[in-house]
Amino acid sequence: MLSKIAHIGVAVHSIEESLPFYRDALQMTCSGCEEVASQKVKVAFLEIGGSRIELLEPTSPESPVAKFLEKNGPGMHHVAYEVADLAGALAQLKAAGTRLIDETPREGAHGSRIAFIHPKSSGGVLTELCQYPGGGKHS
Amino acid sequence: MLSKIAHIGVAVHSIEESLPFYRDALQMTCSGCEEVASQKVKVAFLEIGGSRIELLEPTSPESPVAKFLEKNGPGMHHVAYEVADLAGALAQLKAAGTRLIDETPREGAHGSRIAFIHPKSSGGVLTELCQYPGGGKHS
Repeated sequence: MLSKIAHIGVAVHSIEESLPFYRDALQMTCSGCEEVASQKVKVAFLEIGGSRIELLEPTSPESPVAKFLEKNGPGMHHVAYEVADLAGALAQLKAAGTRLIDETPREGAHGSRIAFIHPKSSGGVLTELCQYPGGGKHS
Repeated sequence: MLSKIAHIGVAVHSIEESLPFYRDALQMTCSGCEEVASQKVKVAFLEIGGSRIELLEPTSPESPVAKFLEKNGPGMHHVAYEVADLAGALAQLKAAGTRLIDETPREGAHGSRIAFIHPKSSGGVLTELCQYPGGGKHS
C-alpha cells in the first residue's frame, strides 16, 4: 500500500532558528520554503534520501501547529507516507475499520493529494498519506 | 553526510496493541522483534521503503521510553538517520558546535553503531545517527 516515508513534519517556533541544524550541521539540502495558508504555516523542505524533513512554523496562533507547540513544545508533529493510489488506500483503510480524518483526498502542497488518519487509530501518531502527481517523482 | 531516514522510533504502551495498525492496516512488513536490554525496551521492526518504523515498548518503569510515555503519551520518540561514517560525522558535528549525547559511537541493534545528538541542538527532536555494517545494507 505504502511506498516510503514521504516526510516527517517537525513543529518549530522559528524556521530561521531551526534551519541551520538541518541544513548546515546535518548538511541536508533545503529545496525551498512555502506558505500553506490553509494550515496557517510556513514550511521549509529539507531533502534526505528520497524523503523530506518539513519544518512547520505557525503564521497565526490559530494554526494547528501553534496549538501543538503550546501543548508539546517543538518536536515531531506528523509522519507522511507516500501511496500510489490514495483513494484506494483510504477505501481499504476504512473497510478495515481505521478511523480517518479525511475520508476523501484533499489538496496538499506541490500538486499532491493528501489525507490524514485519525490519531485514535494510529496510536497517537498523526499520520498522513500522500499521492504525488507522476507516482511519486516529486522534487 | 546522511544517506536516508533509517527509522522513526515510536513509543507505545503495547506492541501487541499497536502492531495491527502498521502491519495489517498500513500493510508494512514486520521483520522481527527483539529486546534491547540496555534501553529496557522491546522493539518491533516494520519495513517501509528502505526505512523502518520501530515500535518501542518499555519493559520496565525505569526505561527512558516509559518516562517518555508518562510525560507525553504514545507517539514519535526519535528519528534516526543513516550515515556511512559515524565517527567522521560526529567529529564534524562537534567541530560545528553541535551538542552530542554520545561523542563516540556505541553499539546499537543488528551490529550497528549509533550515537544520539542532544535535543538542545536539534530543536527538541531526539536525533540518532547510525552506521550499519556493509554501509547500510541492513535487512
